[in-house]
Amino acid sequence: MNGYGKKISLVVIRRLPRYYRYLAELLKQDIKRISSKELSERMNVTASQIRQDLNCFGGFGQQGYGYNVEELYNEIGAILGLRDGHKTIIAGAGHLGHALANHGGFEKRGFKLVAIFDNDKEKIGTTINGVMVYDIADMESYLKENPVTIGILAVPRTCTTEIADLMVKCGIKGLLNFSYMDLKVPENVIVENVHLTDSMMTLSYQLRENKNIGE
Amino acid sequence: MNGYGKKISLVVIRRLPRYYRYLAELLKQDIKRISSKELSERMNVTASQIRQDLNCFGGFGQQGYGYNVEELYNEIGAILGLRDGHKTIIAGAGHLGHALANHGGFEKRGFKLVAIFDNDKEKIGTTINGVMVYDIADMESYLKENPVTIGILAVPRTCTTEIADLMVKCGIKGLLNFSYMDLKVPENVIVENVHLTDSMMTLSYQLRENKNIGE
Repeated sequence: MNGYGKKISLVVIRRLPRYYRYLAELLKQDIKRISSKELSERMNVTASQIRQDLNCFGGFGQQGYGYNVEELYNEIGAILGLRDGHKTIIAGAGHLGHALANHGGFEKRGFKLVAIFDNDKEKIGTTINGVMVYDIADMESYLKENPVTIGILAVPRTCTTEIADLMVKCGIKGLLNFSYMDLKVPENVIVENVHLTDSMMTLSYQLRENKNIGE
Repeated sequence: MNGYGKKISLVVIRRLPRYYRYLAELLKQDIKRISSKELSERMNVTASQIRQDLNCFGGFGQQGYGYNVEELYNEIGAILGLRDGHKTIIAGAGHLGHALANHGGFEKRGFKLVAIFDNDKEKIGTTINGVMVYDIADMESYLKENPVTIGILAVPRTCTTEIADLMVKCGIKGLLNFSYMDLKVPENVIVENVHLTDSMMTLSYQLRENKNIGE
């Protein structure tokens, strides 16, 4: 349950970021309102799915008027908790950590990268995209003084569990996990796994079926 | 529809790679069979979901015996098309391209990285994880001589569309897209989008609800 009086299904929730991205794009183009039909053509989903999905959040669509882009954008942003301005750290300043630190989308969506940690003496003290790389041995003391909500795990698989445990111990409540295996964390900690191989396998399935299964 | 006589739902398909990973892990530990209860505890989903999901693929579970790990592993691998041994290229030898080329999981799952392309003269002619970096200007002629099924787009957003179009023109049937916006491709081409910011937004939603929504 959430503040909207009905349970939003998992499948709809996983589609919200995509709506949010499209609405951001419309706002940038200074489009004030859009019909479910137009939005469906842009997003390549059916208009009825859009109406059904967005109905979960109450009265943003009006027949003959369409959706108020800015209102819907703000509403979905609020539902996604993007206004909370999550402070974020990355553990691991290798290629993946670099790619993530340089990822323009995070800051734009309200995720503020405050520090990067690594154990490589060559990297410690440098900056990536303006963010300082600290010694991973100092992560605990850093987090004590600078509470952070999200920790991104971009370290080798062998030390992922150890670093994840340390992050949790230091009060981090959300982990973005790029490592191969699922993490065991206390119940009040959220893990979102990004399994790149899973995406490749899903792609392979669709190639075999020669059919796009959608998002 | 597929060869299994009934339609497998999208949600189940998106869970198959996760089953596949767990079964691979069990095989490595030389575990021959497993009950839905044991598997559910390892995977942190309900046993009834596992039974329901795996029922889609016929008689691999027997009451009182559980699942034959190897059979189920092979079967899911076949459904996912992993036996097809997809040849893969990466466009972009930046940090993301590097991270992907070094990703151990791809080759293990039957994706054979055959070439990397970039326009940076410093990178052309070098190898990443044993794979040659070619001039992106030569991608078309390379693909004519070496047909490939999957192209990974790890190039800056500004040139993603151009490179994707070129890949499609050269006969690539599956694209893994890391860029921000959705690609427009012919109907017979499959695109799997990896939107890292979407994962962050979904994580943010779960933090706000203080509830893990599962995979």
